[in-house]
Amino acid sequence: MTKTIAFVLYPGLTVLDVVGPLQVVTGLSQLDPRYRVVVLAEGTAPLPSDTPLGLVASHTFDEIPEPDVLIVPGGMEGTMAALADDTFLERIRRAAVGADLVASVCTGSLLLGAAGLLEGRRATGHWSMRHLLERFGAVPVAERWVEDGRIITAAGVAAGIDMALALVERLTGEETARMVQLWIEYDPQPPLGGIDWDGVDIPSYRPIVDGLLATTLADHPELLGRLTA
Amino acid sequence: MTKTIAFVLYPGLTVLDVVGPLQVVTGLSQLDPRYRVVVLAEGTAPLPSDTPLGLVASHTFDEIPEPDVLIVPGGMEGTMAALADDTFLERIRRAAVGADLVASVCTGSLLLGAAGLLEGRRATGHWSMRHLLERFGAVPVAERWVEDGRIITAAGVAAGIDMALALVERLTGEETARMVQLWIEYDPQPPLGGIDWDGVDIPSYRPIVDGLLATTLADHPELLGRLTA
Repeated sequence: MTKTIAFVLYPGLTVLDVVGPLQVVTGLSQLDPRYRVVVLAEGTAPLPSDTPLGLVASHTFDEIPEPDVLIVPGGMEGTMAALADDTFLERIRRAAVGADLVASVCTGSLLLGAAGLLEGRRATGHWSMRHLLERFGAVPVAERWVEDGRIITAAGVAAGIDMALALVERLTGEETARMVQLWIEYDPQPPLGGIDWDGVDIPSYRPIVDGLLATTLADHPELLGRLTA
Repeated sequence: MTKTIAFVLYPGLTVLDVVGPLQVVTGLSQLDPRYRVVVLAEGTAPLPSDTPLGLVASHTFDEIPEPDVLIVPGGMEGTMAALADDTFLERIRRAAVGADLVASVCTGSLLLGAAGLLEGRRATGHWSMRHLLERFGAVPVAERWVEDGRIITAAGVAAGIDMALALVERLTGEETARMVQLWIEYDPQPPLGGIDWDGVDIPSYRPIVDGLLATTLADHPELLGRLTA
């Protein structure tokens, strides 16, 4: 039987959060016809991303009510707006109910948290907002990706590629994961090397994050209070 | 004066070829207002990608005739069709004329080659089709990305992220490149490690590539002959 891997779109999301894992699992679906990939949104009109590129879903939420794998991307302004959107959170909650696996990338884990899916779970997300996971009952962990039962959360943006390869390995094994990796030539050589975390003063970015929350959640004082108290 | 970095869209391209570098240079534009980013296509109607995600350009080619930096993504079937599309190649040629930098990702280098931009230049592309660059007068090089004068070509798909960070460093310096890298959390940890190239028998994939060319270029015998002779 075909397994459906579904991505969730919403306005203003970080496009690499979607496209990194999407390219990986589309590779899986090309190698293994037991998997199909869909991209879900409220409708199929173009949505803005956090870049000048517009995005179009392949299906509506109503068309694919019960995906087997659900992947929720993050972002900054757009994700904060989505956090305050109860209709959207209900979409995630419903799509997640019967899913074998529920994954997030970047601040997408905050959306899982707001949907009530991270209670008591170890989880990660973008380094700048990872601490906020606690506000949803999760245990923030500074890892590239975190698997806790059927929930898999990735760190910021580009971490979605690593997480998705781990997901492919989990679904179908090492051989397929390696073939997908080869085909998308994921053999990273960051020109300046990896990130030197010892040189990143994470708390110093807190005012930027608090400012973002205050601006984007001004009309949602209860949620803003929950996140900044 | 503002510098415009333009991506080129066409039907069926590999979406991560666009979105990796797009996320990187959009980060640049957020940190440094001297840069703006646009996504160009023939029109602004949704275009299919090589995944279920549809893509929408921000501008038409006619609206941005002279970008300062041009970035051309690759793909498989869609890129082969674009290789045979003289109108599209003329778009690339014209947009490239006055550009300070012209970059490609993956088989996008074949498009640069077909547009006559790689004569005598060192260049790279997706490992499976890198040898075809010779047919356009280029010198194929097995590197993550290759800079030859104003032309920068990246290896397959995910290599566009590394190339784009090098591009940001070239445009604005190391500090900005590091900040973009931090923000998109590009600190790769491929779950199965990097690609073991010694274990990849590249010539064994030649029949797949020749089959793709034969199928997609059946109506273009001259180009097919040039690429497979």
